[in-house]
Amino acid sequence: MKVSELGEFPLIDLLAGVLGPAGGEVVVGIGDDAAAWRCGDSTVLLTTDCLVQDVHFRLKDVSFRELGWKALAVNTSDIAAMGGQPQYAVVSLCLPGDTESEAMTELYRGLAEHAREFGIQVVGGNVSAAPVLMVSVALVGQGGKRLLLRSAARPGDQVAVTGQLGGAAAWLRMLDEGLALDKKAANALRRAHLRPQPRVKEGQALVERGVLAAIDICDGLVADLGHVCQASGVQARIRADLVPVHPVVRRAFPHDWLRLALAGGEDYELLFTAPAEVMSGLDKALGCPVTVVGDVLSGEPGRVTVVDSASKEIAWDKGGWQHFATGR
Amino acid sequence: MKVSELGEFPLIDLLAGVLGPAGGEVVVGIGDDAAAWRCGDSTVLLTTDCLVQDVHFRLKDVSFRELGWKALAVNTSDIAAMGGQPQYAVVSLCLPGDTESEAMTELYRGLAEHAREFGIQVVGGNVSAAPVLMVSVALVGQGGKRLLLRSAARPGDQVAVTGQLGGAAAWLRMLDEGLALDKKAANALRRAHLRPQPRVKEGQALVERGVLAAIDICDGLVADLGHVCQASGVQARIRADLVPVHPVVRRAFPHDWLRLALAGGEDYELLFTAPAEVMSGLDKALGCPVTVVGDVLSGEPGRVTVVDSASKEIAWDKGGWQHFATGR
Repeated sequence: MKVSELGEFPLIDLLAGVLGPAGGEVVVGIGDDAAAWRCGDSTVLLTTDCLVQDVHFRLKDVSFRELGWKALAVNTSDIAAMGGQPQYAVVSLCLPGDTESEAMTELYRGLAEHAREFGIQVVGGNVSAAPVLMVSVALVGQGGKRLLLRSAARPGDQVAVTGQLGGAAAWLRMLDEGLALDKKAANALRRAHLRPQPRVKEGQALVERGVLAAIDICDGLVADLGHVCQASGVQARIRADLVPVHPVVRRAFPHDWLRLALAGGEDYELLFTAPAEVMSGLDKALGCPVTVVGDVLSGEPGRVTVVDSASKEIAWDKGGWQHFATGR
Repeated sequence: MKVSELGEFPLIDLLAGVLGPAGGEVVVGIGDDAAAWRCGDSTVLLTTDCLVQDVHFRLKDVSFRELGWKALAVNTSDIAAMGGQPQYAVVSLCLPGDTESEAMTELYRGLAEHAREFGIQVVGGNVSAAPVLMVSVALVGQGGKRLLLRSAARPGDQVAVTGQLGGAAAWLRMLDEGLALDKKAANALRRAHLRPQPRVKEGQALVERGVLAAIDICDGLVADLGHVCQASGVQARIRADLVPVHPVVRRAFPHDWLRLALAGGEDYELLFTAPAEVMSGLDKALGCPVTVVGDVLSGEPGRVTVVDSASKEIAWDKGGWQHFATGR
């Protein structure tokens, strides 16, 4: 069987299967947003993520500075989804030999900007030739007094998200369809896609307030909630009318805003679950929009249904971001 | 200017320049084999390295299991060169969608074998589509009571290496020239290239015995000694007749063994410097061959000369592994 027929999660499961169970000081192994282990009195977090040319971006669409920001930001978001503090990063950069050195400098500047803004030190890296540009980052962080886990959702929890969804995917759609939005709207979508602001402080506030389960929205709301449900052995229901859709997306895509918000991916907002009493007042504690969008239920592990305001199920082809299926 | 005109080290210097000096708990930033920072009572090490198809390997030459081993081993060797203990790894895997999933499993098995043998836990990873296979690993380790640094070589030190050199590069040469060696010899070279045994215990023993300066031989003896000399502000002289050449290399390449041993690269032996009194008895302490091959001198920082037994300089085009220059 070809890996394109499998998708990312079975491939990571495959790795977990070959390696066997983690031991020693490991608190969280393969399968969450970041790994975690004990180091003295503290918990160390480690994650890695990679951007590949013509898979995650096209050079004609993005600047090198934006790439640098995003390559680090997607990792920062993993640490945020554990409720941790990002600290130290290394960068593995593969690129064609005819890349201009000024482009490299711009990429580094984007990395440095993100690093400064989120208190990260970039402490090393390596550079190699390659047929396409690839930026792989590994990021170490520090866990808080508890970790936010994918496996901690419980029936009866509410499902909530930070911020607004669909903007990052809508930018790609705008490019693909050659849609001419006004400059302000186009810039808002571009920033949503290329300059995501990982919810680090918000993740830490969730820990403080007693939230246990979270993930960052990378593959899309439905798909990522599916990952939480799979890891927690539960199912969930999303109320489509409650989903906080990016206002530009709702306006620019009158027929497709719901799909973009539910399955678009790359929003790097936090998706989390908690009992109603924990949810209450979280928007004030976090200082950002917090929207309850559904419920956790007992039932088929990993199953996510989308319903309308009358609780009628909306037909839904299990969407989200499929790396090998779409090539984007 | 194109990055191919720069080479790897100026590109990493560029990153260091954009980022500015490291602060806080960082003990070693960009420019050594691994970064290091304080975490409570211990020192955490972090490194990353990447293997790229048709740059570092050709799929027709290697098995996926060998690739898995080597992708982790090159990182383990970085931790060894700091005198540390490798602990936790994450793997970023980019591969064409038509890769067989059995090939992936084999790659993971190679990773797992190396991990088991060196006490490493692989705690996470991600998988992405890409036009060619790329395996990027980040490895966290623990530093010992002191770190081995590139910057700690001093005039008057002797220069020594563990093991025997040239085998890894000779395997590539054998393939390129279609050389028919006997099976045992061919296998010895193949293992030297594809199943390197990083000198972890040996690096730790160097720390115990008071050695201060080391690097692993990745780019070749002359080039890597150049990196040590550059970082330490010194120069060095290698006695060609003292260099411990892999016996198969000397036999199979009667005209070129010296070049392979001095500039071949990828041996993943340790190169270190220390005063004569520290050197004495090190082979027993390390339990492997230790050979003094030259001296550290004051003078032009980074300069390395190669001399014969009569101290006459051997003409030498500053060789070593040039990622962008050769495409291999």
